[in-house]
Amino acid sequence: MKINELVDKHHWLGWLLFLGTAVVVFLLGLFASTIIQRRTEATVMNVPLYDLEEFEPRNEIWGKAYPREYARYKEMADTSFESRYNGNAFRDALEEDPRLVILFAGYSFSRDYNQPRGHIYAVQDIHHTLRTGTPDEKTPDMQTSSCWTCKSPDVPRVIHEIGAAEFFKTPWSEMLSEIVNPIGCANCHNPENQHLRIVQTPFIEAYERKNIDITDVPINNMRTMVCAQCHVEYYFKGPGKYVTFPWDNGYSMEAIESYYDAYDFHDWVHPLSKTPIIKAQHPDYELFMTGIHFERGVSCADCHMPYITEGSQKLTDHKIQSPLNNIENSCMVCHREEKETLIQNVYDRQDKVYEQKILLEDMLVKSHIEAAFAFDKGAGSEDMKRAQDFIRQAQWRWDFVAASHGASFHSPLESMRILSDGMEKASEARREIARVLAKLGYYEDVPLPDISTKKKAQRYLGLDPVKLRKEKNEWIAEELPEWLKIAKEREAQMKMPERIR
Amino acid sequence: MKINELVDKHHWLGWLLFLGTAVVVFLLGLFASTIIQRRTEATVMNVPLYDLEEFEPRNEIWGKAYPREYARYKEMADTSFESRYNGNAFRDALEEDPRLVILFAGYSFSRDYNQPRGHIYAVQDIHHTLRTGTPDEKTPDMQTSSCWTCKSPDVPRVIHEIGAAEFFKTPWSEMLSEIVNPIGCANCHNPENQHLRIVQTPFIEAYERKNIDITDVPINNMRTMVCAQCHVEYYFKGPGKYVTFPWDNGYSMEAIESYYDAYDFHDWVHPLSKTPIIKAQHPDYELFMTGIHFERGVSCADCHMPYITEGSQKLTDHKIQSPLNNIENSCMVCHREEKETLIQNVYDRQDKVYEQKILLEDMLVKSHIEAAFAFDKGAGSEDMKRAQDFIRQAQWRWDFVAASHGASFHSPLESMRILSDGMEKASEARREIARVLAKLGYYEDVPLPDISTKKKAQRYLGLDPVKLRKEKNEWIAEELPEWLKIAKEREAQMKMPERIR
Repeated sequence: MKINELVDKHHWLGWLLFLGTAVVVFLLGLFASTIIQRRTEATVMNVPLYDLEEFEPRNEIWGKAYPREYARYKEMADTSFESRYNGNAFRDALEEDPRLVILFAGYSFSRDYNQPRGHIYAVQDIHHTLRTGTPDEKTPDMQTSSCWTCKSPDVPRVIHEIGAAEFFKTPWSEMLSEIVNPIGCANCHNPENQHLRIVQTPFIEAYERKNIDITDVPINNMRTMVCAQCHVEYYFKGPGKYVTFPWDNGYSMEAIESYYDAYDFHDWVHPLSKTPIIKAQHPDYELFMTGIHFERGVSCADCHMPYITEGSQKLTDHKIQSPLNNIENSCMVCHREEKETLIQNVYDRQDKVYEQKILLEDMLVKSHIEAAFAFDKGAGSEDMKRAQDFIRQAQWRWDFVAASHGASFHSPLESMRILSDGMEKASEARREIARVLAKLGYYEDVPLPDISTKKKAQRYLGLDPVKLRKEKNEWIAEELPEWLKIAKEREAQMKMPERIR
Repeated sequence: MKINELVDKHHWLGWLLFLGTAVVVFLLGLFASTIIQRRTEATVMNVPLYDLEEFEPRNEIWGKAYPREYARYKEMADTSFESRYNGNAFRDALEEDPRLVILFAGYSFSRDYNQPRGHIYAVQDIHHTLRTGTPDEKTPDMQTSSCWTCKSPDVPRVIHEIGAAEFFKTPWSEMLSEIVNPIGCANCHNPENQHLRIVQTPFIEAYERKNIDITDVPINNMRTMVCAQCHVEYYFKGPGKYVTFPWDNGYSMEAIESYYDAYDFHDWVHPLSKTPIIKAQHPDYELFMTGIHFERGVSCADCHMPYITEGSQKLTDHKIQSPLNNIENSCMVCHREEKETLIQNVYDRQDKVYEQKILLEDMLVKSHIEAAFAFDKGAGSEDMKRAQDFIRQAQWRWDFVAASHGASFHSPLESMRILSDGMEKASEARREIARVLAKLGYYEDVPLPDISTKKKAQRYLGLDPVKLRKEKNEWIAEELPEWLKIAKEREAQMKMPERIR
């Protein structure tokens, strides 16, 4: 009533009210507009900008269709972050722990073994490692194309074209001009809608053998399973080097060992102890499944590729990295402690597992060297059989943990359990050898060579690291560019995608 | 205005409003009254009903002053809960794991070793264990009163009267009529206000030696420290068996070992391996401090004596028990998983540590038996010195974890670290012995006796468990009641407290 009276008295007040209302309505319109815009942006997000081929291997072409994710993917080139045990940096594992040279004696890992860098370096790093040798007209390949399996989205493309069996048995160097794009989009995604997709042949076949349907898996499980296409234990089966996941009896260390033992499988015979050794690859998925984070329903991507927002968009961070480099978006989503506390909690776990890993390594190194000494003193292969059985078991246990990325955090207790089981086996091996040596009249400690650096350890094995590196560098400078030139020409012929929105 | 008009028209409406208001005001008064009552109840809660003596040992007298807490305390008599590894039940550790008989050969623990029951059984159980023997006029005491230290609130009373040195060296049986009340109120509380109080002499002295002031500790730390008065590693120092906490170099397994080594301390010499052994007591506090719950600020009482409410009262549950028996009030205060999941999570940790503990036990049992075999074959003490050093270290590591209540959950990783360190030592011990035996011309595995049951293992050591139990039962029936009669007469003379509110 009072307002009516006032407006009746002062007409300008009526105009003020009218104008004020007009301004408010205009602003509401603006808000509504941005809301609609943002909703639209979110809705079309899963519709790519370009029409991609089913096996499009080129990450930069995917980048046109999904520019936000690709921008983060490229950030993986940053290798500056280094944590106590890993990180994104390029680190020489043999330099940091020369025991590994002895443990992998006679196997290519004794030449060269680096901490893994980001996916974006996968192809570059396989070119550079001494493990792939210097294949050319005179020098045969050290590896078949099985070694490419986890390195590139070109792999599903080529396997689609020529079949898995044909691919795996092809000499490694023959694929140098085919496999050129580092691990990327097509390894995990359906190009039509960026949904997660399984394309890894050995993974699909392992689940087929287990009669487990993996065609309709909930999204959160897929955020682990796409990683498990590669981050697993595997082996090269038969003369065709067919990449196979040894899960038929289960995922545990013991189940996988029983699978290999039934095949009488070994990756190589150790030249010092003459033991047929199983090389563990990287049973990351297998060990992750025994840890508390998996049990609580956390997926790989939740910590290594947490959700981020860019404007109105919620997207998965495609800079795949150590969560330690990104505590705020990884751990702190659930854990409310301080950043420094959380990092220290991780290190505490890793330190304890590392301490036990080194204890077992020392025992294993001594086992191999003492066995070699026993053979030198005249021990027969029958005398050494029991010790070798124990060495094989102990080294499998050690490697199962040592080779697994992040096991010391993903599942510290299972890691410790496996390592201590390995210690028991290594202990038996060394006791056996001590007995064999005593039988041969030798009662003292076996003298150990100086293996305090990578170079000394490699020289002890008769390797010439300087020569190997020199040959490789020459190969990189002279041979490799030829292959990459062919690859470039081939890719130039590939179809460019059409813009569809 | 409308209401005014209505009331003017119908007078009865005015009366209705008046009466309604009166009813509401009356109800408000009632509410205020209960609030005031409850506030009062809460305020006087810390004021006891009775005036207690400073060292009042009788729990039932405290019960008059603090009836709610005492009612819960008495619930500890319930021993029905049994978990996979412990619980509140009376369980024979030697029966469940006969390896222990061999490991404690020559020491009283090889006679009798039971899972601990609730505090309320502390005195009853020390009467019954074979470890205290059957002291009478003819049979000397096996223990001094040091063994009473953690069993009763009579201990601080007697120490206050005669001094700690005098108390510790007194033969155990001479205190049978003094120490009669099981662990209870006066061990942790100030009788004037039920505040937490430290009364344990060795605990106070350990902190004095470390120059750490424990007179003004925050309440949450006290909720751990009162437990740490007993749940710790300790030893009986010198001929006076002075109970001492070995913390001068720190709380870790290594720090405590270095303390003992500097003293050249051993609890007994193992009759099989002739090794001077340190018996770990129960380093619960030491290992708890290395675990994640301690790190996150959780106190012992938070899980073992969680807060409960009775009416308006929030009180600490004095039924001290395994949190597994009380998941809702312990774990679930912080963890939002299902009860069954949480229990499984605990078991998963315990299973892994238990597996490793058994591995190390097997190695240690073999070490002792193989060492005895080597002595039989004519090994000299010089030949065996190195093996014995390793056995001592290995057994200390094993026992540090095995003897600690709850370590496999409180700190599974540190437990695993210590056990695996022990495995390395045991491994070296067995290798040494194999070498000594081979030198003596013996190359085979040492035959192991059948120690598959407690009885078989005890008979292997020349113990007569049936005879021991029979003698003890006679002592309990005939000797013990005499002492308890004297105690009863003594307590009848004690002052009864006055009611003060």
